[in-house]
Amino acid sequence: MVTFQERREKSIVETRKAIAGSIGDDFLITQAINTVTEIDRNANILSKRLREWFELYLPELSHEIPEHEQFITKILTDSPIQLKKAYDNSMGAELEEEDVNAILGLAEDINNLYARKEKLIDYIKIKMEAICPHVLEVAGPLIGAKLLAHKGTLRELALLPSSTIQLLGAEKALFRHLKTHARSPKYGYILQHNSVATAENKGKAARQLANKIALAARMDYFDNSE
Amino acid sequence: MVTFQERREKSIVETRKAIAGSIGDDFLITQAINTVTEIDRNANILSKRLREWFELYLPELSHEIPEHEQFITKILTDSPIQLKKAYDNSMGAELEEEDVNAILGLAEDINNLYARKEKLIDYIKIKMEAICPHVLEVAGPLIGAKLLAHKGTLRELALLPSSTIQLLGAEKALFRHLKTHARSPKYGYILQHNSVATAENKGKAARQLANKIALAARMDYFDNSE
Repeated sequence: MVTFQERREKSIVETRKAIAGSIGDDFLITQAINTVTEIDRNANILSKRLREWFELYLPELSHEIPEHEQFITKILTDSPIQLKKAYDNSMGAELEEEDVNAILGLAEDINNLYARKEKLIDYIKIKMEAICPHVLEVAGPLIGAKLLAHKGTLRELALLPSSTIQLLGAEKALFRHLKTHARSPKYGYILQHNSVATAENKGKAARQLANKIALAARMDYFDNSE
Repeated sequence: MVTFQERREKSIVETRKAIAGSIGDDFLITQAINTVTEIDRNANILSKRLREWFELYLPELSHEIPEHEQFITKILTDSPIQLKKAYDNSMGAELEEEDVNAILGLAEDINNLYARKEKLIDYIKIKMEAICPHVLEVAGPLIGAKLLAHKGTLRELALLPSSTIQLLGAEKALFRHLKTHARSPKYGYILQHNSVATAENKGKAARQLANKIALAARMDYFDNSE
């Protein structure tokens, strides 16, 4: 006879299996894109720290290259000691090689973080090709993954009306609009898409792109789940 | 005859030189310790992200090792795929090797950040041995450098009364005390020192340590500047 205890244990095992089985590729994409966002934020914070430190040595160079990644590539490829020779009367101090190397160490780590971000974007592309090739095609890996991560699963994204997709990522502005009658937002994450960012009529371009993404998500979800 | 223009240019060159010459080792220590603090914060944020991701695969292991650095070392030395075999009925999903590798990539970067932190602490030690060996001896590299960074220069630290040194890093509590008559803080950064953290009477230990650091800073500053 099956005792209560045995039933209980079997039920726990089944539940664990069901939980383990509920993790789809969309969960992995969500984790990866959240990591990309977090790496981006941290690399930027550390880049500012790097610049403040580097500017003791050669402030002129740091001011000339405002873009963090470019600046880091520059000081890692051309040694700062060589670079400094080009500047007469720099306001930076003369540092020992070990001091410059300590600064370059931080630059290397930040560079690794930026490289990791690129690798993760490639990984996201591969994952999206498997479960939502159309969304990938229409929205690109970054925006597509952000939309997916916002709802957590492809199913939920596929069930959204395109007007909601248009505003995902603009919740703050949307609720301000509902509460205070401020102007309603016209776009969320999808503003970063090239077709919207460069459009003359951004609201219209956002509406069109959101339409396409909604269609793409439904094709991806319902084709695979049939 | 010297024209106005020539005088002006010469004056600019002299000023630039003076600015460049004003950067002492205490500025480098300040930058390095601020970087250590920032790396610490960022590595912790990324570690939380890593755990959330990893817990899709093997949540049980992540819960067993609450300390971030230990956890990262564990999954980098013993492959998670091997580790998972020890867990029957894990609630984590079965992932492909490429998915696990994406997670491990992030772990590697965080590990590099922790290693960088240790290297920077060594660098801070070398620098402090040169300009403030006594402060290093009494307070250790982390607390010593934080005290130095708080004021920016060894000179300013050497001119502080020990009661101020005792409270550096506790400004928030101090001003709350002054404003609202809440209890006054007894220690700032120096609470992290072993002799204070493990003392039964922490206030007394903090006062004693602050006294020693004040003396040490004066010895370091006035011996060198003579």
